[in-house]
Amino acid sequence: MNSIKQISTVTLIGSGNVATALGLSLLDNGIKITEIFSPNMSNAKALADKTNCGYVNNIGDLITTSDLYIIAVPDKAISNIISKLKNIDGIIVHTSGSQSIDVFDNSNFNYAVFYPLQTFTKGKLVGFKDVPICIESPNKATSDLLIQLANKISTKVVTLNSIQRQYLHLTAVTVSNFTNLLYTLSNELLDEKGIDFSLLHPLIKETASKLNEVNPSEAQTGPAKRNDTQTINKHLEILQNYPEFKEIYKLLSDQITKKYHG
Amino acid sequence: MNSIKQISTVTLIGSGNVATALGLSLLDNGIKITEIFSPNMSNAKALADKTNCGYVNNIGDLITTSDLYIIAVPDKAISNIISKLKNIDGIIVHTSGSQSIDVFDNSNFNYAVFYPLQTFTKGKLVGFKDVPICIESPNKATSDLLIQLANKISTKVVTLNSIQRQYLHLTAVTVSNFTNLLYTLSNELLDEKGIDFSLLHPLIKETASKLNEVNPSEAQTGPAKRNDTQTINKHLEILQNYPEFKEIYKLLSDQITKKYHG
Repeated sequence: MNSIKQISTVTLIGSGNVATALGLSLLDNGIKITEIFSPNMSNAKALADKTNCGYVNNIGDLITTSDLYIIAVPDKAISNIISKLKNIDGIIVHTSGSQSIDVFDNSNFNYAVFYPLQTFTKGKLVGFKDVPICIESPNKATSDLLIQLANKISTKVVTLNSIQRQYLHLTAVTVSNFTNLLYTLSNELLDEKGIDFSLLHPLIKETASKLNEVNPSEAQTGPAKRNDTQTINKHLEILQNYPEFKEIYKLLSDQITKKYHG
Repeated sequence: MNSIKQISTVTLIGSGNVATALGLSLLDNGIKITEIFSPNMSNAKALADKTNCGYVNNIGDLITTSDLYIIAVPDKAISNIISKLKNIDGIIVHTSGSQSIDVFDNSNFNYAVFYPLQTFTKGKLVGFKDVPICIESPNKATSDLLIQLANKISTKVVTLNSIQRQYLHLTAVTVSNFTNLLYTLSNELLDEKGIDFSLLHPLIKETASKLNEVNPSEAQTGPAKRNDTQTINKHLEILQNYPEFKEIYKLLSDQITKKYHG
């Protein structure tokens, strides 16, 4: 293990949404991206072009002298990537919310987790300043170096262990992916009825931004919160030809009613 | 029916979140609030104090000369209120997303619906400028007067019939009330584990604001979208002691998987 004072050079393993967002943000903040690895040659080239570096699609060809290697690949590919990395002194991190740090157990690397808590979509650039970055490492010096690096791109850097990160990831899925399904079902229904989905945008934004001022359980409103069975039943009737939507409407209304009215 | 050129005076029937938000916004935009009615004397007085007018708790005592009467009471109380209003020439509107305009059928009033599409919570002031206001009236002159009034407080005024408004209200419940339940479950779980819920705020905001740039179905991410059953099963295992949360997690993940992977 080398004993660097700060991380200056980074290799990106992966070329998807997370690798791209991280790479561009690090570059913007004075970090040199040394190389991109991706099995997908055209994705690798696209990201390499954006970050002014070279790319390889054979992991054995990677430059071995970077300060940091960021693994940003699908969860199930992480352990395979780790097993193929050789002769690397730099820090190696994965960026997954749900993978434990134990995935590095059989390696001799200087390793850590560097988890940016955000939803990254192609074609939508996310600024990193507000993105929480969650760090975990068994090595204090490594953790300090990563915190120092993370502070360059984000104002919200925390250390969390693997168990805590798992809970955070589970709730991130809940407030983001599941919420987005609710948006999608609503969008599809309104489209079909010729009603402009963007009428809901201010409500969606207000529902999210309320959380700055009140606790979500205090912010709960709506028919189920009021135990207004008449409206709920009317909505269930409207949804009779939309069985998936109806099932979600019923379960969530039932749970709200139960929570606030026993 | 009188033939006024514009609405200058408004009586509020109700003193809850919607009445308060509407009353303050109308007042701010040069409309005179003439009186508040509410069966709850202290709520009526509180809103009357804020809007510089008097209040009554007997509906028979209402001033009968206002240009507009806004009924902002729980849905199930609307028809009873309408049946008790007497000798009124002004326009009478209700503000409900789910009540049809038919609730006025047996009255001789000049009536309409004036539905502000937003979530109003006590203690959190909502600016009306971005709040869509949905107007419906069988009478063109009445509709025009209400559109003119609505344009004073909002930049997004639309006309929708009762069927359309019902669909819009159903999806409003979905993207706001159900989403807020997802926030609540997540908040409770993280609190219990000593993890700061505010770490999720940037993700929640980004999930909402993405909709300005991409369609929600294009914005879908997460384990279910990737058909990552390993992560989904791990999350379901974590939730085994949280049966309500687990049921929601399972249903929504199943639906996302089915939607994107057949």
